[in-house]
Amino acid sequence: MNGAELLVKTAAKAGVEICFANPGTTEMPIVVALDSEPGIKPVLGLFEGVCTGAADGYGRMLDKPAMTLLHLGPGFADGIVNLHNARRARTPVVNIVGEHATWHREADPPLAMDIEKLASTVSGWQRTNESPTALSQDLADAVAASMYGQISSLIVPNDYQWEESAGDSIATPRFSFAPVGPDSIEQAFQLMRAHRKTALMIGGRALRRRGLLAAARIKAVMGCDIFTDGFPPYIERGAGLPDVVRVPYFPEPAIYLLSQYEVAVLAGVKEPVAFFGYKGIASQLLPQECRKFRLDTDSQNVIEALETLADVLNAPPYSKILASIPSEQARPAVPAGELTAEKACLTLAAIQPENVIIVDEGLTTSVGYYPLTAGLAPHSYLTLTGGALGYGMPCAVGAALACPDRPVIDFEADGSAMYTVQALWTQARESLNVTTLICANRSYNILKIELAHVGIESIGPRALSLIELDHPNINWVRVAEGMGVPAVSVNTAEGLAHELAKALAEPGPHLIEMILT
Amino acid sequence: MNGAELLVKTAAKAGVEICFANPGTTEMPIVVALDSEPGIKPVLGLFEGVCTGAADGYGRMLDKPAMTLLHLGPGFADGIVNLHNARRARTPVVNIVGEHATWHREADPPLAMDIEKLASTVSGWQRTNESPTALSQDLADAVAASMYGQISSLIVPNDYQWEESAGDSIATPRFSFAPVGPDSIEQAFQLMRAHRKTALMIGGRALRRRGLLAAARIKAVMGCDIFTDGFPPYIERGAGLPDVVRVPYFPEPAIYLLSQYEVAVLAGVKEPVAFFGYKGIASQLLPQECRKFRLDTDSQNVIEALETLADVLNAPPYSKILASIPSEQARPAVPAGELTAEKACLTLAAIQPENVIIVDEGLTTSVGYYPLTAGLAPHSYLTLTGGALGYGMPCAVGAALACPDRPVIDFEADGSAMYTVQALWTQARESLNVTTLICANRSYNILKIELAHVGIESIGPRALSLIELDHPNINWVRVAEGMGVPAVSVNTAEGLAHELAKALAEPGPHLIEMILT
Repeated sequence: MNGAELLVKTAAKAGVEICFANPGTTEMPIVVALDSEPGIKPVLGLFEGVCTGAADGYGRMLDKPAMTLLHLGPGFADGIVNLHNARRARTPVVNIVGEHATWHREADPPLAMDIEKLASTVSGWQRTNESPTALSQDLADAVAASMYGQISSLIVPNDYQWEESAGDSIATPRFSFAPVGPDSIEQAFQLMRAHRKTALMIGGRALRRRGLLAAARIKAVMGCDIFTDGFPPYIERGAGLPDVVRVPYFPEPAIYLLSQYEVAVLAGVKEPVAFFGYKGIASQLLPQECRKFRLDTDSQNVIEALETLADVLNAPPYSKILASIPSEQARPAVPAGELTAEKACLTLAAIQPENVIIVDEGLTTSVGYYPLTAGLAPHSYLTLTGGALGYGMPCAVGAALACPDRPVIDFEADGSAMYTVQALWTQARESLNVTTLICANRSYNILKIELAHVGIESIGPRALSLIELDHPNINWVRVAEGMGVPAVSVNTAEGLAHELAKALAEPGPHLIEMILT
Repeated sequence: MNGAELLVKTAAKAGVEICFANPGTTEMPIVVALDSEPGIKPVLGLFEGVCTGAADGYGRMLDKPAMTLLHLGPGFADGIVNLHNARRARTPVVNIVGEHATWHREADPPLAMDIEKLASTVSGWQRTNESPTALSQDLADAVAASMYGQISSLIVPNDYQWEESAGDSIATPRFSFAPVGPDSIEQAFQLMRAHRKTALMIGGRALRRRGLLAAARIKAVMGCDIFTDGFPPYIERGAGLPDVVRVPYFPEPAIYLLSQYEVAVLAGVKEPVAFFGYKGIASQLLPQECRKFRLDTDSQNVIEALETLADVLNAPPYSKILASIPSEQARPAVPAGELTAEKACLTLAAIQPENVIIVDEGLTTSVGYYPLTAGLAPHSYLTLTGGALGYGMPCAVGAALACPDRPVIDFEADGSAMYTVQALWTQARESLNVTTLICANRSYNILKIELAHVGIESIGPRALSLIELDHPNINWVRVAEGMGVPAVSVNTAEGLAHELAKALAEPGPHLIEMILT
């Protein structure tokens, strides 16, 4: 078999089930090979940011990598931004990037770029393949590296894809978490015992049910408070699950909130920092004098670390914790009248079904949504980890393909949506159960808020032209329909409730433009 | 004044007249400063690839840089692909990239990336600013460096934008071409004299009227043939101008065409190479034994080099050359019936007005267009220099803003158009005289041709799903209308002729979806 076939077969054996692709001439052998491997579903994105964002969404849901197939340096470059978001989310992703034939590279043809340099800006693991036969081990290593929560990028010259491999043996990924050290458990134990006020900050896999319950056990015995980062990659949430407080976006309220803690135990997450730097305000949100301790490392299983700590602390068992968490569901009523950001959040919380996956890129519109959801039916919630716009629509694609039996609602800012609007086409092609709620406030509203935050309340017309998205208003119904997604526009809360319920009852993608007052 | 104001004032004094921007929080001081400087027009793009592609189109038309304003690493990353195309076009561009405040950078906040590394993948000149006061010299140096035909990228920390500069003195760019050396002229002279068969390959500024005429003078005295690269960045073309042959896309016909030459004199262009590597076919398109000689360097004025060579060769004066070129215009008749790629080319050639700017990203549809245009009314013609899809729509934005009195026609493949579809919104907002002709063949047709070229005539359904853009068909009329651009769909040559003439007669942008058979 040729290198491309070997690569594809290795991927399938390693458990890779999907390939988000926008290939070109230099990846054609892999495209052809995908037809011989029924275990991997190819999904076309009409822009590479759709492919990498979908891989991010897929990986967040399943904790295993999707493959992407990208065309040379430009194909990788167009995918960087959503790989940046995936890197910040610690999502496993395996990128396959075609490269010119080895002997052609030095001619510096028009499409040539320094792919290795591009890849190094987001990849935790990367390699340039050196022979058809090596492609199996390369791919297995890429998958294994990704499982620690990082981006793997394998650059594959076109000639090595076509050429025959010397053997047919298929490598398998070697992946296992490093054991949790008793020393770090002991240190955390001593720290928490010795001080009164502890913040337990959790992230990564710890935001899944088991991790949340382990954190709740620790809280039950130690009286600590549970936080997560301002922008968690994935959290399981709702009635029957412990609530977790997100660190606020602006540093002033975050610093105020965290000022009371003498100890911070970090599990699966870095120390929280401000999103942007503001004059005279610290970057670090925890008090300087607070004792900070990271319980785990990136190569350890954070759930195991939390459970071990809970056991060492003699925390109550899961059954007691579960009994103490309200399992009754409480949801707000649908509000009435003109749609505002607040009413959009309330309506979504009122309507969203059990088991829904909420992809949140609503920014200033969705800011009030999370606090409404602790008592809703259990669901998953994903946010913009890296701050780079255009994650939501592709992420919804990946989440829907990862979990085809679950509805996906993408709470999506209009400005952000435009970055990767091509994702709607893939939603239509794959008949995905994604409902997109476009927050049509027709401005980069976050920038107005940021300007006000530094004391600038009014700006001139030329500056304003870079912040307002009106003139012309985007007609989201036409944009969506143009890409094959049925769409409606609403401007009242009742209208949104009606259309959202209707969209969720029908299979396939829908888009609802929410005209906000 | 603060650093941002100093930067903006320096840019205006250096002749920068436009800023294609998608700013964020870290660029707000520059946004605010733009309001105090009437000499620079800010233009919003809803995706950074629109901004950088527009800067490319602008720079190709005027041979001077537009400024871009990009948000941190992610903003730059989204702009890389069209900067790659601009780099291959040797277009002057000045990028301003905001960076986190210097003291905040080490906190590794969510949006942090290695901007310097990202910038280095496309920039010929780059610098990270080190103080508010230095911003004037930094900007002046960026502009000067860009004038040699390269991308300049200046990274500006947020705190240095806000802080006061120590002085108000405004630096000016120091730019001048290096003198053309008599030695290289003499060498070219000797080479051409000593051998019978010469290819004169010209590019860059040499494809403007003066360069074309200088090449024609050399041809008149030496009998050489004039070629340019397969994908010239900008060429002036039509009746009264010397014709220039483009090197074919596939290496086999290119190698055959060039096999007859014993000497190749290169002016403003590199030696031609194959777009992709194919087994058993050379990367270099000129014969190995052909004597290749580059007349100029990247820091010299190629027009001066050609004119000097023409003089040394005792070539006839311009007046004689002009008299020998047919100035009568000859255009094809509008064809009839179902629209094909060939008929689309014929119809465009039949209808396009004098002085039009043709942006060609039609790929497999537009391949027959260029040979039809030597005898048309004079016009400008721009192509996809770097092979990275999504250049056409943004390039049309930049070209229209550079030359507001000239109509722009963007001959645009449907697959390519999707990459930077957001450009339509900017066309609408700025009321640009751009008519987009969408080549709706509903496939990445180039990939089918490339597969056939390597002997693969049929592929399986899964591979085909990555090449076909049908299911669903994109409705380009709705997509365009959704972004504020009036649009129609045609499927006959007569329909295209009618709608194109109508669109050209009305101000503002239009889109015509050409359903191809």
